[in-house]
Amino acid sequence: MKLYGYFRSSAAYRVRIALNLKGLSAEQVPVHLRKGEQRAPPYAARNPQKLVPALETDDGALLTQSLAIIEWLEEVHPQPPLLPSDPLDRARVRALALSIACDIHPVNNLRVLLHLRDALGQDQEARDDWYRHWIGVGFDGLEAMLADDPRSGTFCHGDTPTLADVCLVPQVANAERVNCDLTAYPTILRIATTARALPAFAAAAPDRQPDAE
Amino acid sequence: MKLYGYFRSSAAYRVRIALNLKGLSAEQVPVHLRKGEQRAPPYAARNPQKLVPALETDDGALLTQSLAIIEWLEEVHPQPPLLPSDPLDRARVRALALSIACDIHPVNNLRVLLHLRDALGQDQEARDDWYRHWIGVGFDGLEAMLADDPRSGTFCHGDTPTLADVCLVPQVANAERVNCDLTAYPTILRIATTARALPAFAAAAPDRQPDAE
Repeated sequence: MKLYGYFRSSAAYRVRIALNLKGLSAEQVPVHLRKGEQRAPPYAARNPQKLVPALETDDGALLTQSLAIIEWLEEVHPQPPLLPSDPLDRARVRALALSIACDIHPVNNLRVLLHLRDALGQDQEARDDWYRHWIGVGFDGLEAMLADDPRSGTFCHGDTPTLADVCLVPQVANAERVNCDLTAYPTILRIATTARALPAFAAAAPDRQPDAE
Repeated sequence: MKLYGYFRSSAAYRVRIALNLKGLSAEQVPVHLRKGEQRAPPYAARNPQKLVPALETDDGALLTQSLAIIEWLEEVHPQPPLLPSDPLDRARVRALALSIACDIHPVNNLRVLLHLRDALGQDQEARDDWYRHWIGVGFDGLEAMLADDPRSGTFCHGDTPTLADVCLVPQVANAERVNCDLTAYPTILRIATTARALPAFAAAAPDRQPDAE
């Protein structure tokens, strides 16, 4: 398999963690987002969404969207599972993951920040305020979902990592990079700290990738 | 079951379509987003993300996040299926759905538009430009994903509706409401027109809901 990604892309970071947790390896193919490589051939011709990550299977199929890639990994390499077995529990883990993947990350994505700068003339401080605002809104909800539910354990759901942790750790890393104050989110921080200490998460960190700057 | 939603929420619209396609009924409980009812008790106490939709099961469990709700419906009410059986095809359908649910809809969500107005002082014209910009970026990619793949059929994937169509129709309805020019997206328009003619989609439309204004 080949993973098209970017060291700092938190969506690519999710897939790196999932591959590691499953004990799978993929050749990394860097797509430099800040240089716009995702908008040029050959990458854009294969992934017209012009986003990373994309996973190429050994048969040459190209999968896009980090959560679709991870659900596929879960279906074809079910062990160890990243989703619980009970449907209600699966729904909870997916909701936690989607609360990050839909409602926090896209609003703070690089292309949105560049559009705020280029189309709306927002300076660095305004863009950082934007970033922190949506981290706050999202983490307020996520902290309550985690702290108030007895199904939370060492990790977001129980005592083994799931898709929710796979999404949580990259989002916490992003928040820290923009110096968000996370002291109001003790459950998020506890879980993220525990998860990041695992080799599968540690090896997926941005600064450990071949294209890290 | 009870569906907490809002007639104009495209995420709630997705769940309404999925319920209809599955032949399931749920009591609708309106949460008036423009009046801020999602941020007040009792709703906010049960869903700390303060978003709609949420689905309450007959056992009183509350599920959140539209795609997590629909995956749960698919698992407990598998007929008719909203995902194909082959893992690669499932990945394609989920990627199409997520390209809308992650990369188009959240950036144009009501709370983002209100933040553009209140925190960044953007007027109606600037907010409409923002909306149309992200529809354009997202639909450019989606049109290519649909037009260039032989797996597209009468619907996004083959000749029966899937999770991808469930996401596509509400997004097209939103784009029309802001007067986006969609002539560059013939495949999207063809599929959305076909899907909207089906009773399950038609009955889920915003203007057919009890809280429609």
